Amino acid sequence: MSLAKATRQVPITRHDTARAAEERDDLVAVEEPLEIRVGGQGVAVVMRTPGHDRELVAGFLVTEGILRRRDDVLDMVYCRPDGRPPEENIIDVLLAPGAAVDLAKLTRHVFTSSSCGICSKASIEAVRGQFAPIAAPLAVTAALITGLPERLRAAQAAFAQTGGLHASALFDAAGNLQVVREDVGRHNALDKVIGHAFLAGGLPLADRVLLVSGRISFEIMQKALAAGIPAVAAISAPTSAAVEFARASGQLLVGFLRGERMNVYAGTLAG
Amino acid sequence: MSLAKATRQVPITRHDTARAAEERDDLVAVEEPLEIRVGGQGVAVVMRTPGHDRELVAGFLVTEGILRRRDDVLDMVYCRPDGRPPEENIIDVLLAPGAAVDLAKLTRHVFTSSSCGICSKASIEAVRGQFAPIAAPLAVTAALITGLPERLRAAQAAFAQTGGLHASALFDAAGNLQVVREDVGRHNALDKVIGHAFLAGGLPLADRVLLVSGRISFEIMQKALAAGIPAVAAISAPTSAAVEFARASGQLLVGFLRGERMNVYAGTLAG
Repeated sequence: MSLAKATRQVPITRHDTARAAEERDDLVAVEEPLEIRVGGQGVAVVMRTPGHDRELVAGFLVTEGILRRRDDVLDMVYCRPDGRPPEENIIDVLLAPGAAVDLAKLTRHVFTSSSCGICSKASIEAVRGQFAPIAAPLAVTAALITGLPERLRAAQAAFAQTGGLHASALFDAAGNLQVVREDVGRHNALDKVIGHAFLAGGLPLADRVLLVSGRISFEIMQKALAAGIPAVAAISAPTSAAVEFARASGQLLVGFLRGERMNVYAGTLAG
Repeated sequence: MSLAKATRQVPITRHDTARAAEERDDLVAVEEPLEIRVGGQGVAVVMRTPGHDRELVAGFLVTEGILRRRDDVLDMVYCRPDGRPPEENIIDVLLAPGAAVDLAKLTRHVFTSSSCGICSKASIEAVRGQFAPIAAPLAVTAALITGLPERLRAAQAAFAQTGGLHASALFDAAGNLQVVREDVGRHNALDKVIGHAFLAGGLPLADRVLLVSGRISFEIMQKALAAGIPAVAAISAPTSAAVEFARASGQLLVGFLRGERMNVYAGTLAG
């Protein structure tokens, strides 16, 4: 991600009761709307940090169960309204002839995911059924998990500068960092990582470990399952719904990863 | 909020590379779906921490511009499917005869707010136009703001225990805590606070200061404006869209509130 796009200088006044107020500039995380269209039809609008927009769109559509095969996507292009320069806040997914995308399902999705949430209990069951449970757990040791946060931090620049960006990172089973993406939205950062893999033909991610910087909600575990990710670790805590979902899906879920300590909420670590 | 409902014990395995793994229980924040119906029609489903559900529903509908007058709401009831006990994950808003609620607008809302986001640029303008800008700024000093986080922490129990709950709190212009609500979702905690005021006939909140525990996104500022809140402070950083929205709306926006220090991103503090 371009740091220039992910953060922006804004003029602020810094107050400190011990001294006089000071006019200065401060870096904030950029948050802008991105309208997602499929074949010209508006599907959803997400507030995201610009950068890796095609990955975000692909990951969003994959984790919602709309897009399944790489070959179904011909291209993703920024809209060019009336011959003007491309509008980088509107992106259109051009489908291959014969691509199987159910636009009625898109409508249902948008209905059910309002305000970051998904589902009645009935539709939680539907989501579980929609994506296959993890077929074979990945052997992951505590020692491997322990080393991941430092590798993520080393790869991150913007987070430390603004305090406002979340990160998602994929590691291979030996603990090597494969890809890291950032966004003001936790779920967007994960969509970008999954979209990256999808566009490279790399799904399902059956031998990858996901590390996220924030806490783990139901939605994070559901997106991970959509991409076939068998192991998820977080610096912070999971929610009750995330724990229940991980157990039902056969996912390893590690939280409160701090130094040499971690909590295993679902699945088991390899000895 | 009942602490019993907001957190839940789950069995975990705690790993620490320095010693043997240990089976124990851990508290996690509860996250469950709540389906919102208006006059029997499904409107949205949010993942929320149970507790103060009626406030959440009222605040959600108010901040989306659907519900404006307290008198339009006769009651809010948990559904009782087939004469069984009430289902606490489905709530129905019973409208007064003649209540002016535009269900087509509900559909538009649900369309535009997918994945926590709202709006194309065009609809950001529409949201600004939908809610009146702050008519008269509230005189708030740095000294008053400095004292708020400690009063919030004193009122919070669950956050410290799980690390997973966000808080929103309203203070009067003298810095006295009026109401605090918690949720796994930052926007839910704010909806509960606003719904609390709406149900008590207290909108607009023209003389209140809002403090939120997390970072400030566009959506938080927009919800605050919907309730007429002139001043918003946060422990963490705002996003670029939050700063732009606050400036256009005449709101005071204070971030990075740490001890005696704070950054003013929009508006000005009283001397």
